[in-house]
Amino acid sequence: NRRATGLIPGDGIGREVIPAGRRILEALPSSLGLKFEFTDLDAGFETFQKTGAALPERTVDVLKNECDGALFGAVSSPTKAVKGYSSPIVALRKKLDLYANVRPVKTVASAANPIDMVIVRENTEDLYVKEERTLEDPARGGVYAEAIKRISARASLRIATIAGEIALRRQKLREAGAASIHTSPLVTITHKSNVLSQTDGLFRTCAKEALAAPRFAGVAVEEQIVDSMVYKLFRQPGSYDVIVAPNLYGDILSDGAAALVGSLGLVPSANVGEGFAIGEPCHGSAPDIEGKGIANPIATLRSTALMLEFLGEEKAAAKIYAAVDANLEEAKLLSPDLGGKATTEEVVSDILKKL
Amino acid sequence: NRRATGLIPGDGIGREVIPAGRRILEALPSSLGLKFEFTDLDAGFETFQKTGAALPERTVDVLKNECDGALFGAVSSPTKAVKGYSSPIVALRKKLDLYANVRPVKTVASAANPIDMVIVRENTEDLYVKEERTLEDPARGGVYAEAIKRISARASLRIATIAGEIALRRQKLREAGAASIHTSPLVTITHKSNVLSQTDGLFRTCAKEALAAPRFAGVAVEEQIVDSMVYKLFRQPGSYDVIVAPNLYGDILSDGAAALVGSLGLVPSANVGEGFAIGEPCHGSAPDIEGKGIANPIATLRSTALMLEFLGEEKAAAKIYAAVDANLEEAKLLSPDLGGKATTEEVVSDILKKL
Ligand SMILES: CC(C)[C@H](C(=O)O)[C@@H](O)C(=O)O
Ligand SMILES: CC(C)[C@H](C(=O)O)[C@@H](O)C(=O)O
Repeated sequence: NRRATGLIPGDGIGREVIPAGRRILEALPSSLGLKFEFTDLDAGFETFQKTGAALPERTVDVLKNECDGALFGAVSSPTKAVKGYSSPIVALRKKLDLYANVRPVKTVASAANPIDMVIVRENTEDLYVKEERTLEDPARGGVYAEAIKRISARASLRIATIAGEIALRRQKLREAGAASIHTSPLVTITHKSNVLSQTDGLFRTCAKEALAAPRFAGVAVEEQIVDSMVYKLFRQPGSYDVIVAPNLYGDILSDGAAALVGSLGLVPSANVGEGFAIGEPCHGSAPDIEGKGIANPIATLRSTALMLEFLGEEKAAAKIYAAVDANLEEAKLLSPDLGGKATTEEVVSDILKKL
Repeated sequence: NRRATGLIPGDGIGREVIPAGRRILEALPSSLGLKFEFTDLDAGFETFQKTGAALPERTVDVLKNECDGALFGAVSSPTKAVKGYSSPIVALRKKLDLYANVRPVKTVASAANPIDMVIVRENTEDLYVKEERTLEDPARGGVYAEAIKRISARASLRIATIAGEIALRRQKLREAGAASIHTSPLVTITHKSNVLSQTDGLFRTCAKEALAAPRFAGVAVEEQIVDSMVYKLFRQPGSYDVIVAPNLYGDILSDGAAALVGSLGLVPSANVGEGFAIGEPCHGSAPDIEGKGIANPIATLRSTALMLEFLGEEKAAAKIYAAVDANLEEAKLLSPDLGGKATTEEVVSDILKKL
């Protein structure tokens, strides 16, 4: 089973963690029968400064035509508005129609307040359509700007469907004996339809409709207004299983959830489309620790596993998750974001040893 | 000094807590020389069901023409979309040009992890302009909806200016001896300009410009992307002094901050315009505890103080804050949301005694 995998380190610590993803793929036991071929691809702010394009056409072409999956590091956001620059990961999600951003947030099983949730974020629309314009009107006091928030029935149905499927899959794993704090599947629909009755109202209606399908009969469905969702996320995080949300709320909620498990450096994501997945750590390019060799590689290792999961390689994924969990449970070689002193290299070697 | 005050209990527990606001105003020592006249006003979902208008014209007229300030309880959001209904508090903020929503979030001084921040939320625009439409296009897979997010230079400059003023005022209180975890003023500007370069970009530029005014020379200014802001809010809440944000982010951040102090039932807000302020607890109508007489009145009592503060009655406000803090520090009569057993009435009487 040959897998062509694109590697897009991006900027900052993206370059320090993506190699860890490659190494763990190469270290998977040969009994799994997987073989990986890697292609290095460019994207990011430095690429923009060098070439004028943050997401070169070649990167998109190679991913589309030659790859089964990819790993994406992180990109720097310029501290001042830069003409012509816009986030390559946002563009990539749309260009490859990676419609779901799946973000599992989980403590180790022995945690005092265990958490085990997956945030399923719509990944192609909402305010991320980036249709903006700047206008001027004396009646509005001069300059103002407008952005479009777009929500479609199709994207809303699709994201709620995959959220339901993820809830079912998690339930199956539990029934097969996987340890979990949950006993039955639950999907929480997040929106702000009390203010945005048409856009978020459509998201809400479609999500409910999708989750009312007969195959989700065993999945409990509830809803939470986004502000209240953030409140409850912090008050009772253990009660959430799968959360489904429009793009921007999903972005915000997943950073909030990451805070609960102690570090963004632990939280993976996968950008998932039809038969294609890009693993991407949730953290950014972290200019404050760039070049120090101390970035936590776990978010990337888990993102690598998540990519495999969505490419149907669940066994290989499970091996990686277990090795990461063993490192965390042992708590001997931890990176500084977790209060440890280990370097990226030390954490990676430890996890490779545990694989 | 005669003060005409509108009372708008709204729905659910709004009706159980607004009377507490009235009682504490009436109980203020006569040495302060304040006299209040109250007018009961309607708004809310029940008002909508009875009259067809969630915000009757009379309510707006009386507030505009006869009142100096008001207290607003909470309104129920219908669980299904109801034709013609839309939130009266959102409408009121716009109709009275209450451009700032000020939300102080604070633990008692003796807390293990003390927090003392104010979220200053723009209150009239962003997605709250509620300009939405529903369309259909086969190329988009059928039905979709769009909403406008609007950000103006004027509103952004104005909200950042009041945020700066609040930071200065807090610093003055500290210099006058008020206990605080902060030693110097800081304003954190929140936005998502890495995706919304024009709308949030304008907010960011204007906020920086406003805070660069000479009178804010002593105020440190920093910025945080909203997702990262939620993360940091939970990781290091004690480091924030004043946070300024567009409407929707402010809504979400203030619920998040409320979770950190243990209960939404503690968190007040004031909707502030030129010479007018409406105090409003941050919590909702809480259908789960409605009618049980156990709603926490503290958010309303603090909102009452906050209203007074923005009407220039800082001494009276300080008295109310101190009485509330004394109740919380003593921790004998606490409502169930704080782990206590006291009723609304018992908490109110205790605080009135401490006034
Ligand atoms: C970098 C930024 C454009 C991106 C987003 O907002 O989606 C990031 O925050 C994320 O969550 O992947
Ligand atoms: C009830 C709702 C419309 C309101 C808002 O979104 O502003 C509430 O959440 C608040 O924070 O006051």
